Amino acid sequence: MPELRQNPFTKQWVIIATERARRPHEFVQKTEKQPPLSFVANCPFCPGNEQMTPPESARITRDGKWQVRVTPNKFAALSSQGELVRSLNGFKRVVSGVGVHEVVIETPDHSKTTALLPQEDVELIIRCYKERYFAITDDPRVEHVTIFKNHGAGAGTSLEHPHSQIIATPIIPPDIRNRMEVGLRFYDEYGQCIFCKVMLEELAERVRLVHETAHFVSFLPFASLTPFSLWIFPRRHMASFGEIHAEEICDLAHMLRMILAKVYYGLGDPDFNYVIRTAPCENRHSRYYHWYITVVPRLTKLAGFEMGSGMYINTMLPETSAEFLRNVSLPPAAFPEN
Amino acid sequence: MPELRQNPFTKQWVIIATERARRPHEFVQKTEKQPPLSFVANCPFCPGNEQMTPPESARITRDGKWQVRVTPNKFAALSSQGELVRSLNGFKRVVSGVGVHEVVIETPDHSKTTALLPQEDVELIIRCYKERYFAITDDPRVEHVTIFKNHGAGAGTSLEHPHSQIIATPIIPPDIRNRMEVGLRFYDEYGQCIFCKVMLEELAERVRLVHETAHFVSFLPFASLTPFSLWIFPRRHMASFGEIHAEEICDLAHMLRMILAKVYYGLGDPDFNYVIRTAPCENRHSRYYHWYITVVPRLTKLAGFEMGSGMYINTMLPETSAEFLRNVSLPPAAFPEN
Repeated sequence: MPELRQNPFTKQWVIIATERARRPHEFVQKTEKQPPLSFVANCPFCPGNEQMTPPESARITRDGKWQVRVTPNKFAALSSQGELVRSLNGFKRVVSGVGVHEVVIETPDHSKTTALLPQEDVELIIRCYKERYFAITDDPRVEHVTIFKNHGAGAGTSLEHPHSQIIATPIIPPDIRNRMEVGLRFYDEYGQCIFCKVMLEELAERVRLVHETAHFVSFLPFASLTPFSLWIFPRRHMASFGEIHAEEICDLAHMLRMILAKVYYGLGDPDFNYVIRTAPCENRHSRYYHWYITVVPRLTKLAGFEMGSGMYINTMLPETSAEFLRNVSLPPAAFPEN
Repeated sequence: MPELRQNPFTKQWVIIATERARRPHEFVQKTEKQPPLSFVANCPFCPGNEQMTPPESARITRDGKWQVRVTPNKFAALSSQGELVRSLNGFKRVVSGVGVHEVVIETPDHSKTTALLPQEDVELIIRCYKERYFAITDDPRVEHVTIFKNHGAGAGTSLEHPHSQIIATPIIPPDIRNRMEVGLRFYDEYGQCIFCKVMLEELAERVRLVHETAHFVSFLPFASLTPFSLWIFPRRHMASFGEIHAEEICDLAHMLRMILAKVYYGLGDPDFNYVIRTAPCENRHSRYYHWYITVVPRLTKLAGFEMGSGMYINTMLPETSAEFLRNVSLPPAAFPEN
């Protein structure tokens, strides 16, 4: 018998369709990909082509060369110039499209996706996210910052060179607002952070855990929308990603690299997205919101039912996804601790 | 300068990224598709293969042959058998997966997508939706019915033969619940249906209209999430699709066929979804909800930002999409009135 499960943070329902269940190995990507080159002459993100991007907003150097670069997105969705104007005309509510849209070029090496980078390089990427978070939220027009990565054409990117993006909006995105509302209601009722509580429940139950580190826990949501999508939670209560400290950055680099390697080696380098869901700027110290990362391997297609109802049909038990990911073996030279 | 626009029914924001704007013709699908055959020997939905589907729940015949067939989905996401059980264990809220999942085989002809069918055949499909809606909502375990169509692999279907689906759930889908809540708040405040009001505003403004019939109006949402996605609204206030009467069915067949033909001929037969967003069963006569159809040509990919924020980036002004669709010319023999 299939079952419907509810995400406690969003009240969103998913149908876990056990009758259509597929085994984990059926999701492994079969297409033999040409391994990308380390350098591509016409890639705007490869070293030597720095003039192909708008002027840099930040860079982290090592041995005199850049290791991570941040530039405004050449095709920015929002404009960094201009005044914040709100208007309402009949039902037509408009806010001027001011904000920030940046690209984080994660490594000079065109071929090195996160799973293939050494830990210290992943650490630099996360350090860079934090620096940009603070620089961007200095702007009073910014209400919220979304940091995310699209890997592969199926995940919405056309550029192969490893990069992530930062979009700062002059409004609170609805998906964050909904989670804040649910979190607040729970806090009203029980005086606790709902996110902390769910994490503790998962740590006790263990069946959906994928990996644990000193400061982070990764697990499949009980109501996971798609096969293998998972969460990375900081153990310490923090509403905002901006509150992450140096030791946690180092630990998160370990966790993120490990999780993306499990996806890369276990599922055959599928397209994927990750997104850091952080609190709105003004709720940086909220007691009832808790930032976390969602990682979504893109193995299924959104169809009319999902679009029309907001409900998903997941053909794999999250517990099965978790077990599969726990057991992925990684190259021991690069992951000696696994 | 880009702008953010808000959907008044969902409070969802979209970034209309005019700086990245693409011209309508850039979205036209270029891939030359092999036109499908009228009959495919191993297609489970082609005539003669009726034994390949589970036993029929309904059929409409013409000249002694079936024209529309409805069968349970062979790989049903929900089970028609079993008791409705709700449980909560810690944060793990579960409802047993009882409900209905049916396939509507829209025509015996494998090659005839809606845009290519004569109007009377489209009418039979809609009549069939209504019949099934009533048969299914007889079941007290059913709280809501979603009727939708996936056309093409990019829209989530692997079966080419023209078909749509019906999923009846034992809970109210979150996307419907949210619209009900917004609708109720507006009704509290103004004593009017927000959906009727928006439609009247669009009829007055005209710039986002695509087509009008006696009983239906089709227009691009002011805060359209993707290029060319559009709505079809009944002019008469009706919360439930089940309330549609015979004359309106005939008129909707005209509208739906016309709209899908504009998508088919204008955009080069892209993958698409449509979904009928109807009220929950118990709100069939609601004064503050209004059913409508959403049609979404699948021309863009969902990426990390959309996933993380619930906000979309639309690279085309809805007004431009509407103008393009208004001006698509259709084969005069099949569409003499265009």
